Amino acid sequence: MTIKVGIYGYGNLGKGIECAVNAASDMELTAVFTRRDPSSLKIASKTAKVVSVNDVEAYKDQIDIMILCGGSATDLPVQTPALAKMFNVIDSFDTHAKIPEHFKHVNEAACNSKHVALISAGWDPGMFSLNRLYANAILPDGKDYTFWGKGVSQGHSDAIRRIKGVQDARQYTCPVETALEAVRSGANPDLTTRQKHTRLCYVVLKEGADAAYVEREIKNMPNYFSDYDTTVHFISQEELNRDHKGLPHGGFVFRSGFTGANREHKHIIEYSLKLDSNPEFTAGVIVAYARAVVRLYNEGCVGCKTVFDIAPSYLSPLSAEELRASML
Amino acid sequence: MTIKVGIYGYGNLGKGIECAVNAASDMELTAVFTRRDPSSLKIASKTAKVVSVNDVEAYKDQIDIMILCGGSATDLPVQTPALAKMFNVIDSFDTHAKIPEHFKHVNEAACNSKHVALISAGWDPGMFSLNRLYANAILPDGKDYTFWGKGVSQGHSDAIRRIKGVQDARQYTCPVETALEAVRSGANPDLTTRQKHTRLCYVVLKEGADAAYVEREIKNMPNYFSDYDTTVHFISQEELNRDHKGLPHGGFVFRSGFTGANREHKHIIEYSLKLDSNPEFTAGVIVAYARAVVRLYNEGCVGCKTVFDIAPSYLSPLSAEELRASML
Repeated sequence: MTIKVGIYGYGNLGKGIECAVNAASDMELTAVFTRRDPSSLKIASKTAKVVSVNDVEAYKDQIDIMILCGGSATDLPVQTPALAKMFNVIDSFDTHAKIPEHFKHVNEAACNSKHVALISAGWDPGMFSLNRLYANAILPDGKDYTFWGKGVSQGHSDAIRRIKGVQDARQYTCPVETALEAVRSGANPDLTTRQKHTRLCYVVLKEGADAAYVEREIKNMPNYFSDYDTTVHFISQEELNRDHKGLPHGGFVFRSGFTGANREHKHIIEYSLKLDSNPEFTAGVIVAYARAVVRLYNEGCVGCKTVFDIAPSYLSPLSAEELRASML
Repeated sequence: MTIKVGIYGYGNLGKGIECAVNAASDMELTAVFTRRDPSSLKIASKTAKVVSVNDVEAYKDQIDIMILCGGSATDLPVQTPALAKMFNVIDSFDTHAKIPEHFKHVNEAACNSKHVALISAGWDPGMFSLNRLYANAILPDGKDYTFWGKGVSQGHSDAIRRIKGVQDARQYTCPVETALEAVRSGANPDLTTRQKHTRLCYVVLKEGADAAYVEREIKNMPNYFSDYDTTVHFISQEELNRDHKGLPHGGFVFRSGFTGANREHKHIIEYSLKLDSNPEFTAGVIVAYARAVVRLYNEGCVGCKTVFDIAPSYLSPLSAEELRASML
């Protein structure tokens, strides 16, 4: 039976979801829900509808899972609990510190409406979290390291764009190669924020802007840049459009642990991602977990889940027998 | 409530399990079961008993999970189904082609006795299988690569020891660095057996043995060596004891996949292990899954499972709330 999917929000992530749903043999896109005027929105899929978010309730019985593609700051804290009253839902809520609170709200809504919800799918939170959990369970005596990049941080790029005199900007987070190597070698270093990542900024100035002022504002910006070694390059809008329009990302999760009666044996677990398109890869993770949510719902489950609660076999379109024969 | 563990078989893996159980705050080792005379076997744990396998039935109600530490060739196909009639069981059965058959036998026994069993825990099958499944679900359009090593293959070392004139031997499987790099770069190469791994052998000859004969026998041995570039070094027993007594291993699982309307974005997922002690790391995986088996049993589950069927949260001693707050 084909899984009918709704997409709620059509930005970079929504477009990635559309792509991933169309690539999945067991899914079809029913509708994209938008806050914009539906007639103004062109989507890639020919058979799916574009519908105003105001009309979402009419789709209550036509959609097996609603995939939320809004932002974590203001959209998802409101939208995920609200839509969980009508649909099975999945989101990629990524404000780590607020996950317990978000979980509580979504869980209440999903339990009341007898639906299944899954929050915080993606790669961090998501695949990186899973790798931290597995590695900690296997090697209880050890140390965790997470590195991000090289990749575009949209939040940091936005922060630069808000500085007076800046026309456009792209910020890359880069792991420090020597720190990566030290972890990979099993040296178990203690690393400060500055020792783990550098920040690389490409900035287009408005005409007549003060470059020295902009550079100073970036480098001294608290939370975003002041704890890092930051490099600022001023380039033209043409260069930025030509060389920095993609959304690559990635990163590394390590656990370095010990076993043996005298901790005499060292082990390194490393998981890494190199992604040309952050939103399209994130969409791949979300769509696999959307499949799991629908299966759990069909089995009679209710309530909010995270990637920690989902048996891996639920993610695959293959049967348990096929998986054991081909992948175990 | 402390999980009471039995270990069935006390070779390298059994000793690793003992170590991992003693390191787990929520487990205790009740007894080691052996085919040898129990009075001849010294174990590291002071409070656990050493018991003959003939007396195992008397422990039916004293053990929450029996961890089987025998070999896949002849021990586990018999022992796992037999013990699943009396206990929750877990094994590390690793003959990939015979997993469906083994699953069937163990599942029948566990369903009849209303116990939970888990087969093929470890790192391959095990963590590598999980990574194949996750990566295939996320990137359905892509290619898988698995590399093993650098590490000691005990089966290949044994095969060399059976050659006339060989006193002792240690065989290392080594991934070909250029092949690894090609995969990591996203080049999606087609690789033959020979292009992926080399085999490195350290051999101690008996007095008067014919070195040229031994080297020829190794390099031409079908299945084991003839499809690989094999290097043979003759060394003394002292050198072998000094430099090659450990059991290191490891490897790499890659998925290289595409997304986008025109497959224009490339993604690489890499999972790798560097292990000083293959049996102790394998034990770490098995003990985490043993915890999951006991929890499933306590929830009323029955039958045979694999790592694909286990939600990750079951592996950790932390609660779901703690996991969401600390690792997601």
